[in-house]
Amino acid sequence: MNIEVCHTPQAYSLFHKENAIVVVIDVFRATSAIVTAFYNGVSKMVPVATVDEAREYQRNGYMAAAERDGEVIEGFELGNSPFGYMNNKVKGKIIAISTTNGTQAIEASRKASKILIGSFLNLDILCEYLVAQKKDVVLLCAGWKNKFNLEDTVFAGAVVDKLTANNSYQVDCDSAIAAKHLYNIAKNNLFDFLSDSSHRKRLAKLDLERDIKYCLTSNQCPVIPVMEGKYLVKL
Amino acid sequence: MNIEVCHTPQAYSLFHKENAIVVVIDVFRATSAIVTAFYNGVSKMVPVATVDEAREYQRNGYMAAAERDGEVIEGFELGNSPFGYMNNKVKGKIIAISTTNGTQAIEASRKASKILIGSFLNLDILCEYLVAQKKDVVLLCAGWKNKFNLEDTVFAGAVVDKLTANNSYQVDCDSAIAAKHLYNIAKNNLFDFLSDSSHRKRLAKLDLERDIKYCLTSNQCPVIPVMEGKYLVKL
Repeated sequence: MNIEVCHTPQAYSLFHKENAIVVVIDVFRATSAIVTAFYNGVSKMVPVATVDEAREYQRNGYMAAAERDGEVIEGFELGNSPFGYMNNKVKGKIIAISTTNGTQAIEASRKASKILIGSFLNLDILCEYLVAQKKDVVLLCAGWKNKFNLEDTVFAGAVVDKLTANNSYQVDCDSAIAAKHLYNIAKNNLFDFLSDSSHRKRLAKLDLERDIKYCLTSNQCPVIPVMEGKYLVKL
Repeated sequence: MNIEVCHTPQAYSLFHKENAIVVVIDVFRATSAIVTAFYNGVSKMVPVATVDEAREYQRNGYMAAAERDGEVIEGFELGNSPFGYMNNKVKGKIIAISTTNGTQAIEASRKASKILIGSFLNLDILCEYLVAQKKDVVLLCAGWKNKFNLEDTVFAGAVVDKLTANNSYQVDCDSAIAAKHLYNIAKNNLFDFLSDSSHRKRLAKLDLERDIKYCLTSNQCPVIPVMEGKYLVKL
């Protein structure tokens, strides 16, 4: 089986393969928030591309989350901070969510046969599941407005590292090779390694160091969200 | 000044800035061949996107080079092997050239105010020139059919490394940070580092190890090709 890393939603069509499993990655913070939400008992989520769609769900009585450029959009109770999803209010709820990059990546990969949500928070359980499927894997980084970003690539490298450890996966993709190298430089101190990254600087301005530290801590939420029709559900 | 790395021609429009200098990079082998050609006395080159355009130039009496997927196209005397340009036949000539990735990257960046050609063969002279211009720089990797590739990114990392050494350039771009990391892992043995890369494997099948070694040896051709209208000329 092959494992490939796609750096941006824009490039996804070049990586699309009919039977491959796509893992959508937006470490800071959409996919970390989604994994946290399911771990805290959310029943379903509806990722939508636009804020207007999220508002429409809200008008119809759903809980809704909307974030652009790191901030919660006015009129929404939730954004993409994982801490927003750590309370009893979300339990059993269906939540619509629209974010700057993460939900755009889900949108770009809609045609994939299976779409999973990945983050450091569910790293091990995700990798165990992938190895058991014996299928090609495309790691789709959400990036930042269709540009490469470090944190998503480093996480992709962590997955490549684990999946290639037992030789069942082959890497013929230069971006997967590069991601694995970057992860191996970063892994002993992800927080420091990412201190220069553009998105960490962006979040630091918004006083989100606590979010960053949480998003970089592995295996706190052993659940795998998966797309089923228009919904994300727990696998 | 800022320095950014764009991994593919597809993504270039996201990086375009009116006054930035673009450096087009296709280490294996288009930009290595172009730099070699000018070092060996070629007078001008005309990069063209399609093989048909190259053929048209040929019909009009020009020398012409055309390569797709690593091989010279039938009917052309030159491809993108630098060794093809190391002889007296090319001296003083105007040569049209079309390649799988390199000339596509030039095409994508046509609107840039200045387009230079970079490769390990002209690394130092290129960096010295860039530092002296005091302008923003976009390092445009040709990649492989709009996917990220290792060798172009590692070369971009070498340029980032040199340009940031004296603090005159700022890096706010995650792909530039990643490229510099990859270069620093690779620099002591580029040949070995790139041995897993997809393109090296592709070229190894075509028996082009000699080309690879040549393309990875720094500063053999201290010239800087630059676009002037539809022509590449020596700066």
